[in-house]
Amino acid sequence: MDSPQRAFDKELGDLKSKLVHMAGLAERMIDQAIGELVNRDETLAAGIPDFERQVNGLQLEIDEKAITLLATHQPVAGDLRLILMASRISGELERIGDLVINITENVATLIQQPQLKPLIDIPRMAEVASKMVHESLDAFLRSDVLLAQAVIMTDDRVDDLKEQILRELLTYMAADPKSIERAMALILISRHLERIADHATNIAEDVIYLIQGRDVRHPKTR
Amino acid sequence: MDSPQRAFDKELGDLKSKLVHMAGLAERMIDQAIGELVNRDETLAAGIPDFERQVNGLQLEIDEKAITLLATHQPVAGDLRLILMASRISGELERIGDLVINITENVATLIQQPQLKPLIDIPRMAEVASKMVHESLDAFLRSDVLLAQAVIMTDDRVDDLKEQILRELLTYMAADPKSIERAMALILISRHLERIADHATNIAEDVIYLIQGRDVRHPKTR
Repeated sequence: MDSPQRAFDKELGDLKSKLVHMAGLAERMIDQAIGELVNRDETLAAGIPDFERQVNGLQLEIDEKAITLLATHQPVAGDLRLILMASRISGELERIGDLVINITENVATLIQQPQLKPLIDIPRMAEVASKMVHESLDAFLRSDVLLAQAVIMTDDRVDDLKEQILRELLTYMAADPKSIERAMALILISRHLERIADHATNIAEDVIYLIQGRDVRHPKTR
Repeated sequence: MDSPQRAFDKELGDLKSKLVHMAGLAERMIDQAIGELVNRDETLAAGIPDFERQVNGLQLEIDEKAITLLATHQPVAGDLRLILMASRISGELERIGDLVINITENVATLIQQPQLKPLIDIPRMAEVASKMVHESLDAFLRSDVLLAQAVIMTDDRVDDLKEQILRELLTYMAADPKSIERAMALILISRHLERIADHATNIAEDVIYLIQGRDVRHPKTR
């Protein structure tokens, strides 16, 4: 039989695996939603609703496991923080899933109409956001502060892309009222992607908090 | 000297007071930001940056207190869930603060230009969102499932208002390209308000989870 410590370590490992699984699903959801938009092919996003259900289910499992671990093993210090962070990270990933669902709604409107313009910045933004999700989880798994900091810094690039997309689409709108609805859908997609990047940034900030016991969320507060 | 149980109860009471304080600040931030927009008077929102710093500081205090309570008192069952929920609710309130900051940025653009249209739906939406924040906290303090459910149901009204605002402003944009920038700023404000209502909804869902030990976040998952 396993010692209590070994059983506990096994449970922690299981918690981490579930997070990795969740993050993988979230990344695939982003890629498929933007793939549908770029290729104007709705079959590419057919798996998304099922992925979202899996993500939601994993969040519940992680929360229940976290509560059970806290109640039965009463961990302190590092392990306590790790479990709290796992629950928090699963919340961020679940919201990323919700945002991809929002994106697919805008995409569904867009692919029924003629293409407004060749898409360059939105796929780039999606790629960056998806990579941020991946790397924030990697930083968590490897306790890698430098990687977490890199994720946080990448968020500025996403904000720049968002502004660039807004400015460009406002010109389309001004030039042709018929473009307004499609331009608006693209702007909203860019906003959803920005929020996905924000959630990855939250994860990266949590990782730094976890490792350094130092809160980087509000550096100016202290 | 206080018994350990009494000391613990005092700490829990302190945690709750901090949440109430945070929620009160968040509500005032919403009211002031929309007050600035409606009255076109930027002095009305002058206190917002300071409120946001206070909100951020309170989140850090609540998280630290939660971790200390978990490590030193090792609570189980109801108290364990209560502490986890307090940390989660403070996260929701902190994001509401961030969203109000986003609103003030859009408002600053708007009040430098002529008024596009009389504002009716946005102040109404802000009022509903602010009330949802207040009532979600009331539901938490009073362990009131019915009130929490009422908050969750109100979210549909906010979504309806958001759609109505979008449709109306798209017509303004189509009618006059000069209105596009201002209409876009108003649409973004309505999106920020929608997200504030979403965070209040998250709090209400957490309250039900806390009281009933039942997760209402993803009812279809199970």
